[in-house]
Amino acid sequence: MLGARGGWRALRRCASLPRAVRLRVREALGAREPAEAVRVQGWVRSVRSQKEVLFLHINDGSSLESLQVVADPSLEKRDLTYGSAVEVQGKLVKSPHKMQNMELQAETIHVVGPCDIWSFPLKMKERHPLEYVRQFPHLRCRNNTLGALLRIRSEATASIHSFFQDNGYVHIHTPIITSNDCEGAGELFQIETSREAKESVEKSHFFNVPAFLTVSGQLHLEVMAGAFTHVFTFGPTFRAENSQSRRHLAEFYMVEAELSFTESLQDIMQVMEDLFKTVTSTVLSKCPRDVELFHKYVAPAQKDRLEQILKHKFMIISYSEAVEILKQAPQTFTFKPEWGCDLQTEHEKYLVKHCGEVPVFVVNYPYDLKPFYMRDNEDGPQHTVAAVDLLVPGVGELCGGSLREERLPFLESRLQRLGLTDAYQWYLDLRKFGSVPHGGFGMGFERYLQYILGVDNIKDVIPFPRFSHSCLL
Amino acid sequence: MLGARGGWRALRRCASLPRAVRLRVREALGAREPAEAVRVQGWVRSVRSQKEVLFLHINDGSSLESLQVVADPSLEKRDLTYGSAVEVQGKLVKSPHKMQNMELQAETIHVVGPCDIWSFPLKMKERHPLEYVRQFPHLRCRNNTLGALLRIRSEATASIHSFFQDNGYVHIHTPIITSNDCEGAGELFQIETSREAKESVEKSHFFNVPAFLTVSGQLHLEVMAGAFTHVFTFGPTFRAENSQSRRHLAEFYMVEAELSFTESLQDIMQVMEDLFKTVTSTVLSKCPRDVELFHKYVAPAQKDRLEQILKHKFMIISYSEAVEILKQAPQTFTFKPEWGCDLQTEHEKYLVKHCGEVPVFVVNYPYDLKPFYMRDNEDGPQHTVAAVDLLVPGVGELCGGSLREERLPFLESRLQRLGLTDAYQWYLDLRKFGSVPHGGFGMGFERYLQYILGVDNIKDVIPFPRFSHSCLL
Repeated sequence: MLGARGGWRALRRCASLPRAVRLRVREALGAREPAEAVRVQGWVRSVRSQKEVLFLHINDGSSLESLQVVADPSLEKRDLTYGSAVEVQGKLVKSPHKMQNMELQAETIHVVGPCDIWSFPLKMKERHPLEYVRQFPHLRCRNNTLGALLRIRSEATASIHSFFQDNGYVHIHTPIITSNDCEGAGELFQIETSREAKESVEKSHFFNVPAFLTVSGQLHLEVMAGAFTHVFTFGPTFRAENSQSRRHLAEFYMVEAELSFTESLQDIMQVMEDLFKTVTSTVLSKCPRDVELFHKYVAPAQKDRLEQILKHKFMIISYSEAVEILKQAPQTFTFKPEWGCDLQTEHEKYLVKHCGEVPVFVVNYPYDLKPFYMRDNEDGPQHTVAAVDLLVPGVGELCGGSLREERLPFLESRLQRLGLTDAYQWYLDLRKFGSVPHGGFGMGFERYLQYILGVDNIKDVIPFPRFSHSCLL
Repeated sequence: MLGARGGWRALRRCASLPRAVRLRVREALGAREPAEAVRVQGWVRSVRSQKEVLFLHINDGSSLESLQVVADPSLEKRDLTYGSAVEVQGKLVKSPHKMQNMELQAETIHVVGPCDIWSFPLKMKERHPLEYVRQFPHLRCRNNTLGALLRIRSEATASIHSFFQDNGYVHIHTPIITSNDCEGAGELFQIETSREAKESVEKSHFFNVPAFLTVSGQLHLEVMAGAFTHVFTFGPTFRAENSQSRRHLAEFYMVEAELSFTESLQDIMQVMEDLFKTVTSTVLSKCPRDVELFHKYVAPAQKDRLEQILKHKFMIISYSEAVEILKQAPQTFTFKPEWGCDLQTEHEKYLVKHCGEVPVFVVNYPYDLKPFYMRDNEDGPQHTVAAVDLLVPGVGELCGGSLREERLPFLESRLQRLGLTDAYQWYLDLRKFGSVPHGGFGMGFERYLQYILGVDNIKDVIPFPRFSHSCLL
């Protein structure tokens, strides 16, 4: 038996270089002091060979900025090209250039993995359009813009988790596979075993019932809100809408939260606003250079707008007021605004513009427009429900939420009218055993990223394309 | 238009009580000082009515412990029962009892939601077996054991995110829907739109190709490891194995990480061990009472074992050594141990026992046993690959990992022999453009929870049952 660790020395491949401190590019760039023996590994982003000096830029994904390497031209080799992977050892010194803090004076350069530059679709120092890099799902992460996006996405994810953790929420992994088809809320993906899919015979179901990919974890979170006053989930959701638009994905991420013992819809809106502002501030402060890339090249005016938005309270208008505003608008809409009808994208755009291109909460929607679980405001016979949508410039609906109908008689009669009593017996059950006023919301994560970064096409804020007719990896 | 916030006062439902500071049960129990006007909301876990005093215990999911409420018997009402939801207002005072720090002297008790105790399947002060509560997927979170599990699961999740975040990993949301069927690694779930499922006609595919639910994010992480030296993912994975065992789920969570510029398999094992120890220590220190419940009632010896394990380095043995140990075992196995054959559960159990009931890494498996992407150790003609499994007592395989074959000629010839060259052209591509030694691992999250808590059946560590023939919500 090999000892706990010691035996491993024998298995270790001989390293070709004497040991030096391994630093990531981010660490090297941020170092305060020069250092003698340093190793940096990464991919070459540029090679510039001059008569007396060889310049390289190395990136390892830890930051947008690359580390400049200065070397004697004798260290140049044929396979030291753009795209190749290298390990450089040398001295970390203060850089004479204003633009960077530190640079690496190379003593050895080892090409770990060469790059076939002729067939590599990304070219040195070229700013490829997002549509171009989208064609190479397995290589586009090596592009600066996509790299920045993925670091921002990671930071925003971490910040969402921290926000809920810091506020005492319990994280629930709501199911991906569910029997709940959400009453035709959208086209669903159905699941069968691959064996069933191949055979054309009469099917039995793996789970005894038809099973779908979740469109929302809300109902499952409501179950948990009967034992925990604060719960959240953050995971993938699915719609099989055959859409080629810049706003829809087949697979996307949703943040959802549910709160018990709510007093009004404002409790829900407060969390939505706090979440948005906390996560956005964190991303802006933790990934300044990555965000800057978007605000410089992708959506130049977005930076100032975001900073303004973070300073002010979000606006609130009621659905009825929204309809009045639309009716008085000087502009002609394709869909005539009418109380009782859904707000269309053109309406949402106008409302946001009317309010000064800032996020706007629209509250208290018509009863008949909304799903059975939303709470009757009792401001007339089945007139409005305590629902809220958060509209933002450019993107439209970013969040949706509501108080849930916690009163058994209200829920029973509504489900009966809809013929859904049997399907939702378990949901009615929750109202029999210590039911409390509660509510929650969901925020589309990709739409959030689209909004703060000013990205036009939602396909460019995901790690791998997942939309209808995409080429899946 | 309603003002930013002011207008909301009008919409706010009249609260029946004057405002007092709202505290969660956890906050109330941990308070250092008495407080005058306090409100606590939650569900009643016990009611004990005596001649001169009424005792309640209230729980809101923020901790395992409930808050004791002491009230005048005049405050008792007919619907103040076990399971009902209440809001209690009063004074927070030091408790005269040794077992608790603080208690609440009630001035008012408001029953927010009554409970139909006759049909409520959970009974006051009864310790229901886990098999019993498993029957009620929508109510079992109100049981103490499941409540504790969900808090631990949430804390472990947060700790996994922090571990990777603190170590500079980029979080990648690897796809759930994929065209990759992983070469028959297990029975898969296939996806179609619900419209296609209903029609028996010739099918077209939504994504142009047959699409499946992911069994692992590894290949997608490898894509990212070509631009980021440290990446991880933590999300749902799926197997359609029709199993009723206590070890398998159809939907389960996996933590996966991928590292570039690795020097040996030890780099991977080090991260596996650090992850296990960091997350376990965090859970033990952040949820001591919740963990105690499991270590007191579910798996009494687990606590000491875990503490021992955290103190020592994990063992390492090679596959070849493992086979030797098994061959020399005094016990007879159903499957005779033989070099070149897979380790069976009975073998894993024996090995772990042989090593002293501690976690054991088994490394360097036969080439022909493992998937095409594992790195040839070149210790003979296609003899072993740099693969590692982490075996733990009671559960068996907790983690699996390997170095990946980064050398284009090795990978090309192996894929060619398997007839998979066309399907993995994109994977080969990654080896053409700055390929570096890399490797990674996956850890089953439910198995991890099963192990540290000593839970026998994997169905009891998930929020909602998701196994074959389960009743889906």
